[in-house]
Amino acid sequence: MRLITYRRDGAVRHGRLASSADPGPQAPRRDGVDTPSGHDVVVELGDGDLEGYLTGRTGQTDGAEFALGDVELLAPLLRPGKLLAAAANYQDHVTETGAPPLDKSTLSPRLFLKPPTSIVGPGANVPLPAVSSEVDWEAELAVVIGRRVRDVAEADALDVVAGYMTSNDISARSVDYGFLRDTDDKAVWFFDWLAGKWLDGFAPLGPWLVTADEVPDPQALSIHLDVNGVTKQSGSTKDMIFSVAELIAHASRLMTLEPGDVILTGTPSGVGAVTGEFLTAGDVMTVVVGPLGQLRNTVG
Amino acid sequence: MRLITYRRDGAVRHGRLASSADPGPQAPRRDGVDTPSGHDVVVELGDGDLEGYLTGRTGQTDGAEFALGDVELLAPLLRPGKLLAAAANYQDHVTETGAPPLDKSTLSPRLFLKPPTSIVGPGANVPLPAVSSEVDWEAELAVVIGRRVRDVAEADALDVVAGYMTSNDISARSVDYGFLRDTDDKAVWFFDWLAGKWLDGFAPLGPWLVTADEVPDPQALSIHLDVNGVTKQSGSTKDMIFSVAELIAHASRLMTLEPGDVILTGTPSGVGAVTGEFLTAGDVMTVVVGPLGQLRNTVG
Repeated sequence: MRLITYRRDGAVRHGRLASSADPGPQAPRRDGVDTPSGHDVVVELGDGDLEGYLTGRTGQTDGAEFALGDVELLAPLLRPGKLLAAAANYQDHVTETGAPPLDKSTLSPRLFLKPPTSIVGPGANVPLPAVSSEVDWEAELAVVIGRRVRDVAEADALDVVAGYMTSNDISARSVDYGFLRDTDDKAVWFFDWLAGKWLDGFAPLGPWLVTADEVPDPQALSIHLDVNGVTKQSGSTKDMIFSVAELIAHASRLMTLEPGDVILTGTPSGVGAVTGEFLTAGDVMTVVVGPLGQLRNTVG
Repeated sequence: MRLITYRRDGAVRHGRLASSADPGPQAPRRDGVDTPSGHDVVVELGDGDLEGYLTGRTGQTDGAEFALGDVELLAPLLRPGKLLAAAANYQDHVTETGAPPLDKSTLSPRLFLKPPTSIVGPGANVPLPAVSSEVDWEAELAVVIGRRVRDVAEADALDVVAGYMTSNDISARSVDYGFLRDTDDKAVWFFDWLAGKWLDGFAPLGPWLVTADEVPDPQALSIHLDVNGVTKQSGSTKDMIFSVAELIAHASRLMTLEPGDVILTGTPSGVGAVTGEFLTAGDVMTVVVGPLGQLRNTVG
């Protein structure tokens, strides 16, 4: 099942995609959204019912149906309690920057938080911030938590997943506050690195949330990102250093995870920082993760 | 005005404190809450009206009144969009760890995010986590944003403040995931440091939100913390490296700030990490920031 959040007649609602038995005239194609075959109708969920869908408590809808092309798709989750993300979680991404490979046996997942103001949906523009001229892409698999859980074992961790999304962990590789930074100071570097993850629009999510039953193995998904049609990243979630289950188990040792929490699981090689190519106004990023749909965003 | 969030008859509501003309029998004293003189009555706000109060849009209530002692106080804000916090923002706290003083002219504020699951209210217990035996206190002034704002100038920054709270940025000084950490690796150290800020209960807030009109100068507030009645921290917000206005202006250059966003502004000297004294089960922490009320939390 594909769950969506959308705006229609000025109101924000949740829905699921369905196929129209008689599709009638083709719904208009929208920028950033490729409709999967046979999923061209939105069935509206009952009021405030997204969490019910995430937790499997309910399957009722109010029955209203619209063509997908008639609604404005937003990020499937607009204000998750936690938007966690994993740094340095693909070995080829670690080594492409010139660093030695990570020895997983002596490490833990490296997690950070992004604010809800960084979230935008499919088709949205990602504004270039005034504080950085080095804005970079990072195609990622996003995991959505479906159950309140603490200290979940790795073996049970996938049971708490409600679903998956395509995502893009946009990152300002340098942050310029108006004076020369002491880049030898690791603390300065780290706090700048962290702030570079937070800017408005730096977490595109979507186009929909695909429920976990349709993703039997989250470690067997292709990850693709292109900028203006030129492939930049082409990897597979099989190359994660810490698996989805390990990331969830680790995060749950630190914090209670709640329905709707999101974990971005790291990016494979091919980021712009390595070649010095950064995003500029007018660029179009397209991310596709396995069968989770295509997430396209403009930059400017 | 003092704004509160509370549970009564199983429902979570917002209210403001008022004085009872005829107080009648004294409201029962609750652990962790000292009622300011003449503020012993809760006037319930209209449904979902806290943001209206924060933004100054409304002043209506539904008129229901209760004795303060009859409600369970919760954190004034349970799920802020952003719970930001400043690291290393008092010079005496920076130097007490043996580090040289920070040169503000070459630095920016060092911000990090804490998750909403870290928030607890006055009187709540802060659970000692399994992953750390070095849990420490940090008394802080918390600032609550009242207006949606981006790129606000320092001179205008205090105008976007809805109010202030007493807070405690509890911190695990080491995180033990079951193997020896390579503490020479700055990246490992930093991600552990960050995770040590995130545990459940590690952001006590309250007992109430005092609106900004009652705090003419946020840089002139005493900050006190004691553990089991023994004073550990005794400072003043005048010693912040980056002022409240500078922190807000800086954060707003990175992100849109929204009503209800919270910024913890750093802690003065006197944390346990310096002497090696950490919190143990049964400890009682009491934080008082200026006239913002006393925030008491047990540990265990």
